[in-house]
Amino acid sequence: MNIYVAFDLSKKNKLKLKKITKNNRIFFKKEIKKGTSPDKNFLKSEIIFGNVPAEWISKSKKIKWIQLESSGFGEYLNLDFKKLNNKVRITNLKDFFSQSVSQTILSGILSFYRGIDRFIILKDKKKWIGDPLRNEIDLLLNKKILFFGYGFINQKLHHYLKPFNCSFDIVKSKTNSLFIDQKIKVADIIVCCVPETKKTIGFFGKKRFSLLKKDSLFMNFGRGSLIDEKELIKLLSLNSIKGAMLDVTENEPLKKSDPLWSCPNLILSQHTGGGSNEEILNKVKFFESNFIKYCSHQSLNGLINLTKGY
Amino acid sequence: MNIYVAFDLSKKNKLKLKKITKNNRIFFKKEIKKGTSPDKNFLKSEIIFGNVPAEWISKSKKIKWIQLESSGFGEYLNLDFKKLNNKVRITNLKDFFSQSVSQTILSGILSFYRGIDRFIILKDKKKWIGDPLRNEIDLLLNKKILFFGYGFINQKLHHYLKPFNCSFDIVKSKTNSLFIDQKIKVADIIVCCVPETKKTIGFFGKKRFSLLKKDSLFMNFGRGSLIDEKELIKLLSLNSIKGAMLDVTENEPLKKSDPLWSCPNLILSQHTGGGSNEEILNKVKFFESNFIKYCSHQSLNGLINLTKGY
Repeated sequence: MNIYVAFDLSKKNKLKLKKITKNNRIFFKKEIKKGTSPDKNFLKSEIIFGNVPAEWISKSKKIKWIQLESSGFGEYLNLDFKKLNNKVRITNLKDFFSQSVSQTILSGILSFYRGIDRFIILKDKKKWIGDPLRNEIDLLLNKKILFFGYGFINQKLHHYLKPFNCSFDIVKSKTNSLFIDQKIKVADIIVCCVPETKKTIGFFGKKRFSLLKKDSLFMNFGRGSLIDEKELIKLLSLNSIKGAMLDVTENEPLKKSDPLWSCPNLILSQHTGGGSNEEILNKVKFFESNFIKYCSHQSLNGLINLTKGY
Repeated sequence: MNIYVAFDLSKKNKLKLKKITKNNRIFFKKEIKKGTSPDKNFLKSEIIFGNVPAEWISKSKKIKWIQLESSGFGEYLNLDFKKLNNKVRITNLKDFFSQSVSQTILSGILSFYRGIDRFIILKDKKKWIGDPLRNEIDLLLNKKILFFGYGFINQKLHHYLKPFNCSFDIVKSKTNSLFIDQKIKVADIIVCCVPETKKTIGFFGKKRFSLLKKDSLFMNFGRGSLIDEKELIKLLSLNSIKGAMLDVTENEPLKKSDPLWSCPNLILSQHTGGGSNEEILNKVKFFESNFIKYCSHQSLNGLINLTKGY
């Protein structure tokens, strides 16, 4: 059995994968450039670990299981699922990133409320303000939280927020638009973790952003296309809301000239929300657990329903 | 009945206090300078709201109840409690600051783990790092927490930390010194919220700091005298620990020349830990609740046992 690993691994993690897969042949591919054709190692592999280009999949006659190294799988939604269904199983990482992303969101919320963003800049400038700052910081207490999307990340965040005596509302894909606008108007914190769909692209433009309450926080950890960045910059520059945190942006990496860099009251986490120093090791462990199941013909964890597309 | 208010209040809060105290005369004193004698308004007041100089108290023949505007009352420990006990009741703010301080501590911990401190500086410099940052951030998960002191603040923090699957150890004033050193060696996060006593002054000097684990966090929210700041700066500059956060420092405000300003991996919260935009209003509300009790001869909330000194 041949295994094709389609993302960069450290020596230590390569060794770990070799141990896991024992007598099987394993090919490591550091990076796949856009537009390249499937290589011969891919074409002779039964198991793929990593996100290969969608168009490669139908070109292989050997492939039986793909373990993605992501939770999202938007790039595979246009595949001919009916054809693939009998042949290929695809598993994603499920709730793998929920802990890390929700912790980054919570750290951003608390930073705005307790003033960490200001302390860091003040220290950089060696500037003491002291007591007058006390009146400018807030408590995470009795706040109204509005979740856009209620997948693993927002569920985990909800769990972390329980000791803070907040109230919660949830917007899902079929939620009534009037209800959404009413809830936006009263929310203290809006947390967006939704995938990119026709409905979500540009959802927060000038009109919806204008509904946001003064002193509210806006957090986007799904896809950059959800918001009109120019409109958000206007809001923040006019102090119309308290602050925003973006893990995802329209352009990544951001160019030096991007106006987001100089926008006030904004934290940019540079698409690291899902990261941690044990991220790759834990991905390898996730693969290991599924590999054992695969070899013993058990059902796989994180199996995507290809005909339904989730 | 005369009431003497010994700290600065906004017009709105003064009006609120007047409403609360109705037909009683109320004197507002903005600030009391060190070394001044008690003024005539103080000397004719039965109720004091705020922290008057300790030496004033025995000079008044009228005074019956002092509502401090702090939780600490170290400055009153040298009073002749036996003499005062029959005459004066002193109440503090009890657990008033536990929510705000513990939230600032949590926000600091999460900032270090999830990289907020770095994101803010990177944004200031308009510098994108992106993916490589993911490997440098950590999760607040399965960490060993060591509490120095277990008063209201650390109890509240303990509560907030429950969803993060950490383990906890507590050092109290009578904890065995060998046990303390063993726990310091393995702790991921040390949170100090202890008052200044003979035992705590300089407790963290060169020797004890050298026990700290690589990648540990050190948080001090009690009194600045607990630590030798020069030794902490050495640790942080050599990357011997992950980071530190100080709400309290030996000198406040910090001078421009203070080496803490340029110390890396350090967050300085400028003694704002207990602050929030509703802090003063909530102090007035605390007073109101006790004032009603005082007038109806009920026992007061936050009464300090003057003979025991706590």
